[in-house]
Amino acid sequence: MNYNNPFFKKNNNVKVIDVLKALNIKNLKIKNIKLNNIKELDQANINDITFFNSTKYIDLLKKTKSKILMTTNKYRNLVSKDFTVIPVHNVFLAVAKITELFYPDSLNDSFDKNVSIIKKNKFKNLKYGKNVLIGKNVKIGKNCSIGHNSIIESNVIIGDNCIIGSNVIIKKAIIDKNVKILDGAIIGKKGFGFFPNKNVNIRYPHIGMVLIGKNVEIGCNNTIDRGSLSNTIIGDNTFLDNQVHIAHNVKIGKNCSIAGQVGFAGSSLLGNNIMIGGQAGISGHIKIGNNVKIGGGSGVVKSIPDNTNVMGYPAKDIRNFLKDNKNG
Amino acid sequence: MNYNNPFFKKNNNVKVIDVLKALNIKNLKIKNIKLNNIKELDQANINDITFFNSTKYIDLLKKTKSKILMTTNKYRNLVSKDFTVIPVHNVFLAVAKITELFYPDSLNDSFDKNVSIIKKNKFKNLKYGKNVLIGKNVKIGKNCSIGHNSIIESNVIIGDNCIIGSNVIIKKAIIDKNVKILDGAIIGKKGFGFFPNKNVNIRYPHIGMVLIGKNVEIGCNNTIDRGSLSNTIIGDNTFLDNQVHIAHNVKIGKNCSIAGQVGFAGSSLLGNNIMIGGQAGISGHIKIGNNVKIGGGSGVVKSIPDNTNVMGYPAKDIRNFLKDNKNG
Amino acid sequence: MNYNNPFFKKNNNVKVIDVLKALNIKNLKIKNIKLNNIKELDQANINDITFFNSTKYIDLLKKTKSKILMTTNKYRNLVSKDFTVIPVHNVFLAVAKITELFYPDSLNDSFDKNVSIIKKNKFKNLKYGKNVLIGKNVKIGKNCSIGHNSIIESNVIIGDNCIIGSNVIIKKAIIDKNVKILDGAIIGKKGFGFFPNKNVNIRYPHIGMVLIGKNVEIGCNNTIDRGSLSNTIIGDNTFLDNQVHIAHNVKIGKNCSIAGQVGFAGSSLLGNNIMIGGQAGISGHIKIGNNVKIGGGSGVVKSIPDNTNVMGYPAKDIRNFLKDNKNG
Repeated sequence: MNYNNPFFKKNNNVKVIDVLKALNIKNLKIKNIKLNNIKELDQANINDITFFNSTKYIDLLKKTKSKILMTTNKYRNLVSKDFTVIPVHNVFLAVAKITELFYPDSLNDSFDKNVSIIKKNKFKNLKYGKNVLIGKNVKIGKNCSIGHNSIIESNVIIGDNCIIGSNVIIKKAIIDKNVKILDGAIIGKKGFGFFPNKNVNIRYPHIGMVLIGKNVEIGCNNTIDRGSLSNTIIGDNTFLDNQVHIAHNVKIGKNCSIAGQVGFAGSSLLGNNIMIGGQAGISGHIKIGNNVKIGGGSGVVKSIPDNTNVMGYPAKDIRNFLKDNKNG
Repeated sequence: MNYNNPFFKKNNNVKVIDVLKALNIKNLKIKNIKLNNIKELDQANINDITFFNSTKYIDLLKKTKSKILMTTNKYRNLVSKDFTVIPVHNVFLAVAKITELFYPDSLNDSFDKNVSIIKKNKFKNLKYGKNVLIGKNVKIGKNCSIGHNSIIESNVIIGDNCIIGSNVIIKKAIIDKNVKILDGAIIGKKGFGFFPNKNVNIRYPHIGMVLIGKNVEIGCNNTIDRGSLSNTIIGDNTFLDNQVHIAHNVKIGKNCSIAGQVGFAGSSLLGNNIMIGGQAGISGHIKIGNNVKIGGGSGVVKSIPDNTNVMGYPAKDIRNFLKDNKNG
Repeated sequence: MNYNNPFFKKNNNVKVIDVLKALNIKNLKIKNIKLNNIKELDQANINDITFFNSTKYIDLLKKTKSKILMTTNKYRNLVSKDFTVIPVHNVFLAVAKITELFYPDSLNDSFDKNVSIIKKNKFKNLKYGKNVLIGKNVKIGKNCSIGHNSIIESNVIIGDNCIIGSNVIIKKAIIDKNVKILDGAIIGKKGFGFFPNKNVNIRYPHIGMVLIGKNVEIGCNNTIDRGSLSNTIIGDNTFLDNQVHIAHNVKIGKNCSIAGQVGFAGSSLLGNNIMIGGQAGISGHIKIGNNVKIGGGSGVVKSIPDNTNVMGYPAKDIRNFLKDNKNG
């Protein structure tokens, strides 16, 4: 799923000098070129600024097309002389500041003031309830249905044959065809990302989207946050039960089944054909392989290889779980 | 609680030949009688089609009034010669298809297009908020109250002295008297039942209701799904705290107290006077006896006898739990 | 945070004789003075009635300014002769009855009938969406924003620069400045407090408020219940992720970070700078110190001292948790 992001307006006049100002860096003599965007190592192009914050990404560092990056003194010697380096104390804080520079509206979490009551015949064969609010430039495919009091914010794209329930809120999302989004679901809110800071935390910008594949079902009262720099993704034909929470940047594959009240912390990567039982929790920044089964109530705190069946807290191979609890 | 189901229109012209067509069965010579309905073994009457899918139900098989059933080759020899047998590969898939045949609208999960803004004086002594939407043939007892933006879909029945909060959605439900349903609760949605199927899962029809006994309290943002073939039931004077999730076919007895964020997987059967602590999870298809206490955060994965006090994941007798964790 | 409670109208004509009548106590010869209020030991003034129900509070008993209290025979000999004692069988049941006597409206959980569609220019620089409902005497600071379909019930106070999402319900709450309350959150509902009683539970009155400090963020679909006698408090700069549930009387300190789907049972007391991972559960009536870290999925069932890092169910020091699970 490759989509342009229609939700955030980019400032196309960011130069190196603006970056240095935003980071409060003085006396650093580097060429004041114009920058196109801020991107992760593997996504960055030649005129994008990027960042390096962990030896985990050393391979990506070697392959990135970017030539200007932010890093800390700790990692500076790992960066080749070909790069223009901007030294920072805290990489993520610097990324947040520079992202905000490119996307000045990315911290705004206020409601969409551009919505209005849906107009008859605006969308082809759309059935809609009372008090449905639609933003500007919303695209809705044919034969869709939107329930009462639902809000589709500006620039959202919805494919053919989708069924949206009542009291649903969708923002910053691109939804493929034949998708069901049930009552009370909230899609596309800014993720829970911030820098703890005494008295006033510093919020992390979230310029990612939520991408929902075809034939997906999203349960009642689900909350699916949009990504920070990358997107939050739900793959084709994946079904989510009620009260599931999916944090920013999580990517779930195809044909997964996720039962009620399951929660995903940020940035985890899940494969295809995964089954997750009710109330299980998936930690952040881990990788779950294809064809994995996770028992209800499990707490998954580390990556799980393909074709594995786990249960428990912390989750372990189900054979070990059953052995350890045989007298339960 | 015995109620007729006013929510799904039955096709009264289903014959054996229609069943065979729907199941793609050819060359089976059986009498083309007219069928009345599809029912579980113990509920089925003489002209209903039923099904047999587990030796667990062998006693019910002997007692059922139905004379025509679907089963697999594996169980065929357990079925007496008195039955007309329709052999199938997957019993539940066949049940889903035949249920849809009797109830063509049972897979439709779209919002109720027949609601309209509530009319003054339509219900006796009803207090109601702004933007309350009421479907067709809704019955509401005297002295009730319905908060802002709430939606009561067609054919719902609500008893006397009920208090419904704001942003509540009720469909496919029959509610007894003196019930409180708090803000944001969603009652009666189709359950999370489907057959995993690559690319396009097959949804299971849900023709059950939600039955809520008298003096019940349902907390904020609860989700209570309706049953598939049978009903989801909350017994008299049972109280549910906020963010509780109850899946299809769950039956909870009387005088139970269920704390915040508890989740029930489908089809479990709970007795009376049960207390469940916050965030506990109850697996599907198990039986919890009367007077059981389940500690907060427990994961109950097997049936629990009467008068038992359990805790842990998996839940065990609390004395064993405390012994095992005495150095915690 | 010290605020007068503008939400419940007090009956200022309660005398000792009314208390005895409500408790069905006859033949007790005590002076029929006029009572000002019912308060906990440490909050009570000279003309307030109070109560004593546990040796835990023996120090508060010695210091209270009240001179009239309710207690059981079991504790009577711990109470000095200076007090007028009203003997009761069940202290909390008596407190509930007398609270209702002072606050006849405290059991009413119906929607606010006094709201109306927000009027233009009523609040300074307020941006608001469609169908926003505002109660009587609501105070909203400057430069706030309130999303679509949100309901702010009567007497609620909101500080400057607050951002309230869509589908939010706020009642019985006082909110400081720079607070964000995201879509679908429900603040100020009556807590889940009642006396189990066959056939008809007895509800506990809730006359507390929800107090939210400055710079707080409350996530989507959160439920935060108001206090019973005391208040539910969220301290300055504390951030809550989506689907968090906070029960009555919980007091959370400053600069805390609470991840998705965390749940708090009633009356627990949390310090400052606490980090809680997703889906963790905090039992009722415990104390969590400052600078505590609680791992995702943990079940905290007892008090935790300052500067501790815990994980597990039941939660234990993380070093012990890791040791016990090293082969997981």
